[in-house]
Amino acid sequence: MILKGINFDDKFAHFDECWSPKCVARLDNYLVKVLKIKGYFSWHSHKECDEIFIVHKGKMRIDFRDGFVELNNGELFVVPKGKEHKPFSEEVSEIILLEREDVLNTGDVTNEFTKENLDWI
Amino acid sequence: MILKGINFDDKFAHFDECWSPKCVARLDNYLVKVLKIKGYFSWHSHKECDEIFIVHKGKMRIDFRDGFVELNNGELFVVPKGKEHKPFSEEVSEIILLEREDVLNTGDVTNEFTKENLDWI
Repeated sequence: MILKGINFDDKFAHFDECWSPKCVARLDNYLVKVLKIKGYFSWHSHKECDEIFIVHKGKMRIDFRDGFVELNNGELFVVPKGKEHKPFSEEVSEIILLEREDVLNTGDVTNEFTKENLDWI
Repeated sequence: MILKGINFDDKFAHFDECWSPKCVARLDNYLVKVLKIKGYFSWHSHKECDEIFIVHKGKMRIDFRDGFVELNNGELFVVPKGKEHKPFSEEVSEIILLEREDVLNTGDVTNEFTKENLDWI
């Protein structure tokens, strides 16, 4: 039986919408998601769990109440549980996320960015 | 406060040894590791938890008792818990791993590949 891997370029080619995470794989009770971003997301935090951001293509900035991190292609950052953060990208960038499956994308708040039912692609 | 991301190219530039995973980040009780591989690893499985392989540079094959998967640059595969697998790469390839922190690299067996004390780089 020949199995196939998940090709991130293929996955990103299948959608254009920003701030709408799509699931591509499961690791135990965590989900790997692909996300296109442009502009600002809302301030939020995830009280119970850390969140991985990996820049697949482009670049992004994550603002914190006490600073920021800038990420380029092939860079990873873990936002620690409970830390308020506000992602931003000037141009459309392709991001890989990894976080617990029971996490809401907007953390402890619900707003216009909230996506409760995640698509798989 | 300006924080820095983890640059995978930088991390891989810091070591040459194959089959010796190095930790680069923690997500809750999971670890992100970088690993160079060449040749065959041993057959093993992780009874309790899934394992993510992402090819950062190069390519690899993972053999299973009932098949295999070939992965190229920018491709991910999740080896399900309990599934026996045997990683292989003809040339040196750079792999990103993500698995629970209490997992041994050789799974349920100890052999010449076993690395009990993981380095951080």
